[in-house]
Amino acid sequence: MLSKNLSKFIQSLHQKKYRQEHGAFLVEGAKSVREVLASGFQVDILLATEAFYKENDRLSDNQRPRIEIVTPADLERAGTLESNNTALAVVKIKENRPLIAEPNEWVLVLDDIRDPGNLGTILRIADWYGIRKIICSDTTADVYNPKVISASKGSFTRVAWWYGDIAGQLKQHPDVPVYGAFLDGSDVHRITFGRTGYLVMGNESNGIGPEVAALVSQRITIPRYGEAESLNVGIATAIILDNWRRSLT
Amino acid sequence: MLSKNLSKFIQSLHQKKYRQEHGAFLVEGAKSVREVLASGFQVDILLATEAFYKENDRLSDNQRPRIEIVTPADLERAGTLESNNTALAVVKIKENRPLIAEPNEWVLVLDDIRDPGNLGTILRIADWYGIRKIICSDTTADVYNPKVISASKGSFTRVAWWYGDIAGQLKQHPDVPVYGAFLDGSDVHRITFGRTGYLVMGNESNGIGPEVAALVSQRITIPRYGEAESLNVGIATAIILDNWRRSLT
Repeated sequence: MLSKNLSKFIQSLHQKKYRQEHGAFLVEGAKSVREVLASGFQVDILLATEAFYKENDRLSDNQRPRIEIVTPADLERAGTLESNNTALAVVKIKENRPLIAEPNEWVLVLDDIRDPGNLGTILRIADWYGIRKIICSDTTADVYNPKVISASKGSFTRVAWWYGDIAGQLKQHPDVPVYGAFLDGSDVHRITFGRTGYLVMGNESNGIGPEVAALVSQRITIPRYGEAESLNVGIATAIILDNWRRSLT
Repeated sequence: MLSKNLSKFIQSLHQKKYRQEHGAFLVEGAKSVREVLASGFQVDILLATEAFYKENDRLSDNQRPRIEIVTPADLERAGTLESNNTALAVVKIKENRPLIAEPNEWVLVLDDIRDPGNLGTILRIADWYGIRKIICSDTTADVYNPKVISASKGSFTRVAWWYGDIAGQLKQHPDVPVYGAFLDGSDVHRITFGRTGYLVMGNESNGIGPEVAALVSQRITIPRYGEAESLNVGIATAIILDNWRRSLT
């Protein structure tokens, strides 16, 4: 049975304020919990139904978290998922370390992406295209938000991130190309991308802000053949990364 | 003020059963309502706040719907949006007419796409890439679901659809290429697409069903460079359509 105290502690982690205070976040559902147990993240507490625990008891061997056997109702009360009959993990937040684009590496830069669903989708897409690092403006949605973790479908375990002054970070490497998505850039189908670079994606409504825009060396645009006003930022990220990979082969 | 009867009628249209019974669906929010008023759809009832009506009173000139001036609270009670301070339209469902790929046309085929958000996103992407027709299995989410209409961001006014026996429909045109997204197909970066064809996208978990799979003449796959297990079906549709357009130029 889940104690009232532990249930309250887990509920507090729905909110960014308490995640920061406790240095911990939530991972929910079978696939994500299995992935986080097998990853480099430190799992402090694992709530599992009996069935999930029986099937996965060896997975937590390296981590030795505190383990509580609970019911689906406990998981649903403490967590954020409407239905969860498997598991929930309380995981330590990682240190916020700056990341840079090494030679032959692309790094994604998010300037004020506000929607947690979009951020989670972008993590998953980055992981599909082999992007290992994402740097985020402080105004970007919190990656530890349960909605982001859930939408990333486990990809949060394979992509590193840093939050901070993205313009300051880009200025420190003036020799590395900075690509950015704009409405008035060059056709993404005709660009030959370099093997090293930053790709900046901007806010859902307003695009890339002026400070970061000034640092973009190559503005790119996805050509439109019909009449939709815009593409969702997750979709746009996927299309640009696909064109980047395609141009390198 | 919104009468109880009208509010109840609108609430009933949240459900497919009543949409079919009344042959009507809901369009909500300023952008979507403006687009539907300017489209070929017949708007029967327009609920508008005073502010929205003052700004858009000429828009309904062609349609002459019944107009009710209401409050945001009325819109939120009758409609599905959490917040709506503009408008809601009750619109006539169109006749379900079969669609085929004409020469130099691509038609999207959806085999059991269940999630309304995904379907709405696919409508928007189709509209971006100039796809005008979508044919859907009867098991695909209802396009008139308010979540689909809302996620399509107005693109539902520019794309036509038909629901029915998609395998039967494809069999009637055996000379037209049928492309389909699979995990074991040819690399989408290396295919030269034809100007005429069908593109089949399958169910979120199970992909394209066996009956339709048997009719696919060209299996295609989006290459993976990292470790994510899969891409969302909306993202995959966008990437394939982008590669199709790119290969034609």
